[in-house]
Amino acid sequence: MVDIATRVWNHKWKIDPIVRSLIDNDFYKLLMCQSIFRNRPDAHVTFSLINRSSQVRLAELIDEGELREQLDHIQSLSLTRGESTFLRGNTFYGKRQMFRSDFMEWFENMRLPDYHLEKRDGQYELTFEGKWHEVMLWEIPALAVLMELRGRAVLHDMRKFELQVLYARAMTKLWEKINHLNMLPDLRIADFGTRRRHSYLWQDWCVQAMVEGLGNKFVGTSNCLIAMKRDLEAIGTNAHELPMVFSALAQTDDELRHAPYKVLEDWHEEHEGNLRVILPDTYGTEGFLKHAPDWLAGWTGIRIDSGDPAKGAETAIRWWKERGEDPTQKLIIFSDGLDTDKIAELHTQFAGRARVSFGWGTLLTNDFRGLTPDDGLAPFSMVCKAIKANGTPTVKLSDNPNKAMGPASEIERYKRVFGVGQQDEMDVIV
Amino acid sequence: MVDIATRVWNHKWKIDPIVRSLIDNDFYKLLMCQSIFRNRPDAHVTFSLINRSSQVRLAELIDEGELREQLDHIQSLSLTRGESTFLRGNTFYGKRQMFRSDFMEWFENMRLPDYHLEKRDGQYELTFEGKWHEVMLWEIPALAVLMELRGRAVLHDMRKFELQVLYARAMTKLWEKINHLNMLPDLRIADFGTRRRHSYLWQDWCVQAMVEGLGNKFVGTSNCLIAMKRDLEAIGTNAHELPMVFSALAQTDDELRHAPYKVLEDWHEEHEGNLRVILPDTYGTEGFLKHAPDWLAGWTGIRIDSGDPAKGAETAIRWWKERGEDPTQKLIIFSDGLDTDKIAELHTQFAGRARVSFGWGTLLTNDFRGLTPDDGLAPFSMVCKAIKANGTPTVKLSDNPNKAMGPASEIERYKRVFGVGQQDEMDVIV
Repeated sequence: MVDIATRVWNHKWKIDPIVRSLIDNDFYKLLMCQSIFRNRPDAHVTFSLINRSSQVRLAELIDEGELREQLDHIQSLSLTRGESTFLRGNTFYGKRQMFRSDFMEWFENMRLPDYHLEKRDGQYELTFEGKWHEVMLWEIPALAVLMELRGRAVLHDMRKFELQVLYARAMTKLWEKINHLNMLPDLRIADFGTRRRHSYLWQDWCVQAMVEGLGNKFVGTSNCLIAMKRDLEAIGTNAHELPMVFSALAQTDDELRHAPYKVLEDWHEEHEGNLRVILPDTYGTEGFLKHAPDWLAGWTGIRIDSGDPAKGAETAIRWWKERGEDPTQKLIIFSDGLDTDKIAELHTQFAGRARVSFGWGTLLTNDFRGLTPDDGLAPFSMVCKAIKANGTPTVKLSDNPNKAMGPASEIERYKRVFGVGQQDEMDVIV
Repeated sequence: MVDIATRVWNHKWKIDPIVRSLIDNDFYKLLMCQSIFRNRPDAHVTFSLINRSSQVRLAELIDEGELREQLDHIQSLSLTRGESTFLRGNTFYGKRQMFRSDFMEWFENMRLPDYHLEKRDGQYELTFEGKWHEVMLWEIPALAVLMELRGRAVLHDMRKFELQVLYARAMTKLWEKINHLNMLPDLRIADFGTRRRHSYLWQDWCVQAMVEGLGNKFVGTSNCLIAMKRDLEAIGTNAHELPMVFSALAQTDDELRHAPYKVLEDWHEEHEGNLRVILPDTYGTEGFLKHAPDWLAGWTGIRIDSGDPAKGAETAIRWWKERGEDPTQKLIIFSDGLDTDKIAELHTQFAGRARVSFGWGTLLTNDFRGLTPDDGLAPFSMVCKAIKANGTPTVKLSDNPNKAMGPASEIERYKRVFGVGQQDEMDVIV
């Protein structure tokens, strides 16, 4: 039977919205948002889209009108009652009422602030300027919209069966990866793929495939909406934007030197257990750990997000030992450019030496490499970062100079302040 | 929106019927049925299921109750008004009113006769006994039901995503075959895969994929229902059952020797053009062509259905030349155990030397090889054949002794009468 009502309803949509919920966002953004809302409610920040893959000419692929419609749609969203109930009532990381009442009241009334969009040299300049805790919520949906519109553009002229076979191939590919991963004993892996997913529906499929294929080895998803819909753990802790903005807000070199630790002091006060995860690479892992206060060595774990991951993990293990901690009780989360072979390799190398976990991103939710002519769907490296705080440019060094961000003179100053020397260059795939 | 009515309606089905239409059958069965209805309405014939792959223990895989329900459902079918209109009104092979009024009136009132089902040694003995033109219509649906029930049995315990990935893989596999075939210029290929299809829905998908992937190179399907639904040519001419039954009805060796030609005399009277296709291998191609009357050399083409296909085609080309015919104007249809490599090889060898066409069967509509544990869905060799006519056993020799059928003493007599000597053995895949 044809469901005429559904058909008519579908006709009424003016667009096919890509982001349909304010919690179709990464969980750590909400955690950080609450922290900023509490600690830095007056910081004025600019987020900006940065496409590191300049050969992907987004402004030639994606129609500006369509992009504006999608962004406008996101601005029209507000937290639904069910979403609010989920955030207020759910247990996250074993803790009830993770989100405080004052934050939830604000969030329920929040609308995303304006965006600024321009075309330049075949790329889109997309910026968000305003209160930090508001503009920071644009990062993930803005990236997801651009990734999905790019996908729609590439798929636009494909025929029905070509499309069906494309997704059949992508499903097969992911399923083979999952079966491969399932051979690793005691694996712990989460979906970190929201920002650069092929599409919302595809991410949702990938997550369900992980649930069925990996069982308990799949520990959850960073996507709040999918976590709610699929009754999974929402996963995530904190990101570079915290030390980056805190550092930009520092008035002196000395304040700058202490800014990355100041961030974690706030976090230490707010969170415990598995949420106490250090992200040490913003201004170089070596120096960060060397100068870290002892209470930080007592934290549960570390997240390795740039540089050679094995080297980063060895550095962390060595550091814990130096500080009298038992690394086997510590958590190491790998989250940079992972795919199955790298996951298997790291798992084999570190299993037993620490508690190991993986945040699998782009190559979980967007591995369409080799599946279309000219590889038009291959993932590319696009980020949306805080570039300015209260008028001062932000800086990121990371453990890979190819991921560095900020004005050259500021990069030099940060390198000096944080004592960063020679770094190994690594390709940035995603 | 949930379509509650559809959901409730679906609940009301007692079974999920595999064959839902009397024209979910091969077109050539209907052509032959009409011919038999006219020429041999009193012949009493027994059809029997023969599973040549004894390692596939159907009676252990398939529940007898379920099998009976499916067969009973087929017996409940009658020709619908739309199906009758299609058969009466459509142009087949360029001819209007291919099916005569007296035949259509009979067909509209026909119900399939009883079946006889027993279990023996892990196999089903399934026979159909009655008027030839009625029991012969059981062949294709009986095979399709057994193939699909076997598939359902193998898939029964698979989880949701395993199933989705299984079909994703099968789709990918077929699409790659189609792209491979599409590189052959001037290819002409048809679907002959009804009898050993994985399932009805799968055959329907395969046909649509061929339409989209091959365009004009795909010339049609043997399945009448799919031809009707998808607005395609219904393809097929005649089969071994005609000479087999005619031969069994012969009273003397001399009548036997002439029986295969007598069949084609009737056909010559009834059909012209592309329907005049010789199937020469029932009792050995060499002898059949050698003793054939000249008017048969005037027929449009030949179908190669056993033995080494290249050898069979060379024999036919030589024969046409001997009889003063121009082979480049003749049609050679290959239909035995084809897959892409073999199709490409034969196409390359014979393109330009004759008009070449392919009837692609099991490995089009049922290639799930390597896609399930223990290869539980691999196609196997099952046929449903006329084994007796008016009390006399039938015999088939073909050009491959592994496809021979009938009592040993009768096989010897037929070999003598038709002058069949040494034959090359070939594996029977499907």
